[in-house]
Amino acid sequence: MLSLLDMLRRIDAGQISAQSAISHSLDLIEAKEYGIRAFTHIDTRAMAIDHGPLRGVAVGIKDIIDVAGMPTGMGCAIYRDYHPRADAAVTAMLRRAGGVPVAKTTTTAFAFMDPTETLNPHDPAHTPGGSSAGSAAAVGAGMLPLAIGTQTGGSVIRPASFCGAAAIKPSFRLLPTIGVKCYSWALDTLGLFAASVPDLAYALAALGERPDLRLPDDTPQESGSDLRIGVLMQDYAEAPEPDSIAALDHAVKAIEARGATVTRVTPPQEIAEAFAVHGVIQDYEAARALAWEYDTHRDQLPPILGEALDGAQNVSAAEYDAARRKAHRARRAMKAFSGDFDGFITFSSPGAAPEGLASTGDSRFNRLFTLLGLPAVNVPGFSNDAGLPVGIQIVSGFGHDDKALRIAAFTEKALRTGL
Amino acid sequence: MLSLLDMLRRIDAGQISAQSAISHSLDLIEAKEYGIRAFTHIDTRAMAIDHGPLRGVAVGIKDIIDVAGMPTGMGCAIYRDYHPRADAAVTAMLRRAGGVPVAKTTTTAFAFMDPTETLNPHDPAHTPGGSSAGSAAAVGAGMLPLAIGTQTGGSVIRPASFCGAAAIKPSFRLLPTIGVKCYSWALDTLGLFAASVPDLAYALAALGERPDLRLPDDTPQESGSDLRIGVLMQDYAEAPEPDSIAALDHAVKAIEARGATVTRVTPPQEIAEAFAVHGVIQDYEAARALAWEYDTHRDQLPPILGEALDGAQNVSAAEYDAARRKAHRARRAMKAFSGDFDGFITFSSPGAAPEGLASTGDSRFNRLFTLLGLPAVNVPGFSNDAGLPVGIQIVSGFGHDDKALRIAAFTEKALRTGL
Repeated sequence: MLSLLDMLRRIDAGQISAQSAISHSLDLIEAKEYGIRAFTHIDTRAMAIDHGPLRGVAVGIKDIIDVAGMPTGMGCAIYRDYHPRADAAVTAMLRRAGGVPVAKTTTTAFAFMDPTETLNPHDPAHTPGGSSAGSAAAVGAGMLPLAIGTQTGGSVIRPASFCGAAAIKPSFRLLPTIGVKCYSWALDTLGLFAASVPDLAYALAALGERPDLRLPDDTPQESGSDLRIGVLMQDYAEAPEPDSIAALDHAVKAIEARGATVTRVTPPQEIAEAFAVHGVIQDYEAARALAWEYDTHRDQLPPILGEALDGAQNVSAAEYDAARRKAHRARRAMKAFSGDFDGFITFSSPGAAPEGLASTGDSRFNRLFTLLGLPAVNVPGFSNDAGLPVGIQIVSGFGHDDKALRIAAFTEKALRTGL
Repeated sequence: MLSLLDMLRRIDAGQISAQSAISHSLDLIEAKEYGIRAFTHIDTRAMAIDHGPLRGVAVGIKDIIDVAGMPTGMGCAIYRDYHPRADAAVTAMLRRAGGVPVAKTTTTAFAFMDPTETLNPHDPAHTPGGSSAGSAAAVGAGMLPLAIGTQTGGSVIRPASFCGAAAIKPSFRLLPTIGVKCYSWALDTLGLFAASVPDLAYALAALGERPDLRLPDDTPQESGSDLRIGVLMQDYAEAPEPDSIAALDHAVKAIEARGATVTRVTPPQEIAEAFAVHGVIQDYEAARALAWEYDTHRDQLPPILGEALDGAQNVSAAEYDAARRKAHRARRAMKAFSGDFDGFITFSSPGAAPEGLASTGDSRFNRLFTLLGLPAVNVPGFSNDAGLPVGIQIVSGFGHDDKALRIAAFTEKALRTGL
């Protein structure tokens, strides 16, 4: 993969210019895109912005996020030839930081579950995951040092796990979703993909103008003796596959060996109740957020989304209100529960990327943290016997993105250096 | 004003068709618009939808809310000739309910404070208020039975007070803001304007598919002996003018005379602290939500907005986070405090509409309830010595829009029938 921090060090040292860094990404896209299909639009003449913490960084933007001057296709024919007037907030924030949107990345239609044509960079017979398929694959394939995606269920962490990229879904609304096509306003969360956790931390700090999120240096400390980490088995969800159990076991042993205090924990009952209502909130809101598309272009919706929206029309306001109250109680319970820990370690996905392109995989180990708005990081570094990546997920309390990033960087390093 | 419920009764009785009801509104627009200037676009050939609870209801839509087939101008030259691809969620929900968007109503640029050209229907030498100037004036002038606006500070309740319309700013996100130009994602709230509180309740129930919001019948009960109402003087804000003090005194006496239990109350300290941070949240978010407009078209922003955004660039993430924590604490404190009351009665605006069109007035008696997400209703029915309307505001706890509407209907009737 392309390391953002390595590249910036070379720019700072005068070894390469910001423009040549951008051009390097474009060359890699030209060389690799044919085998990956990660993009819906590429600006082959993208010009560097020669200042800011992300100068020289070529960025892929999920194709539900508006970029002025590029089409936004939403992964659906309804938005063919749609050119937004303005940048999304996050796109404008990216440009302020010196980053350059060089391409739009594939998305499932409206970021739901109908697969894109993107292939997994580790094995083209496997899904890259979804819905942020192109962003995860572009970074996983080493075409871009940074890509932006969104998660409503598990659409950042799951494809990152499948494609071997580091990724963060920050605390809810740390990055604003203005100018991002909405599926569920209580759930939709922007996220970032990069080659490593320090790259993510640097990029999120720059984009969000939150310098505290930068890791103290780019080589996180060897010892984790001050870290209290809970192991969450997510028993409220169907069990994971052996690959993910192996990945978690391996990661837990690696961080324990470096001194972290690791405890297996069972979250309070309110958590399981909230997990069960994620779909109610998602459906009720999607029925309204996509009301125009459903009412006027039902025949142009792909099959999985079309059927989901058919069912979503039947969720009542009373069911929705009850679901929101359960989510609210769970957020409070989680706040009390998570106070004893710096963060939690759990599965990023049920296993490695499934074979075939008919499904983008399952978000069951991600949905709760989306609903609760908690920062979640996918840590790459473990592979199954077939050589496919299997990620590990780090989660911290709301607003503690710094802790999640620190634990993730520590875990990443522990995985890389071996036991 | 045009009563929505009266009109629907006549349609139900077969006295008029839905189409003739729409045409009647269009005729009134043609007759009155020259003296009011409430609209940026009028669909003079609008066709009725002949089913649904709002069949025959012609609706004005604030010009930051997308309507497919009409331009959305945002009150600013940057969006000249901008035609959105899709309806906003609330527009599609309106059509589902049978309502017809017949016109776009004037808005201050991006719903901030630079005045529109709209005149107050009660005296053209006075402001109609803002930012939902056209929606308030169109209903106040009797051109439309229903209009949609938004409130980030006081942009629904204040112009309603100035124009003599009933209006509701429902609980935060009861109506989704998808497809509505964002100024502040934590504050922007859709609202409705109509001729009376029962009209509002009926329209909100229909739009939101929340039948529980309909008032038991269209003639609220005479007695309020079961209502416990707190009088909020909002001492954290600068004092009101004599007109608003007189309006509140009058309303309190009227509802007490009909049996309501009315108590003067002082909210907990957290409330005043939250009032003080509204601007921090608004500024931080606007700097990001309007980043593209500011970075690429600063010269096309009107003066008040341009200067506000200049200052807004300096709010740090740390200041914003601290402000959000204060707002969060105030929401919890308000929940505990409001449990002893069905609702509160307070000022809608500092006084009647100020003379001149240079200012849209002051939102100081509205901002707190926007920040806390509480349902707020403007009750018309009181006028000052010059004949200008001065509204009264009813507020209830989060999610208790039904209570706010019931108290407001009771107060409205008490004001209409006199002491």
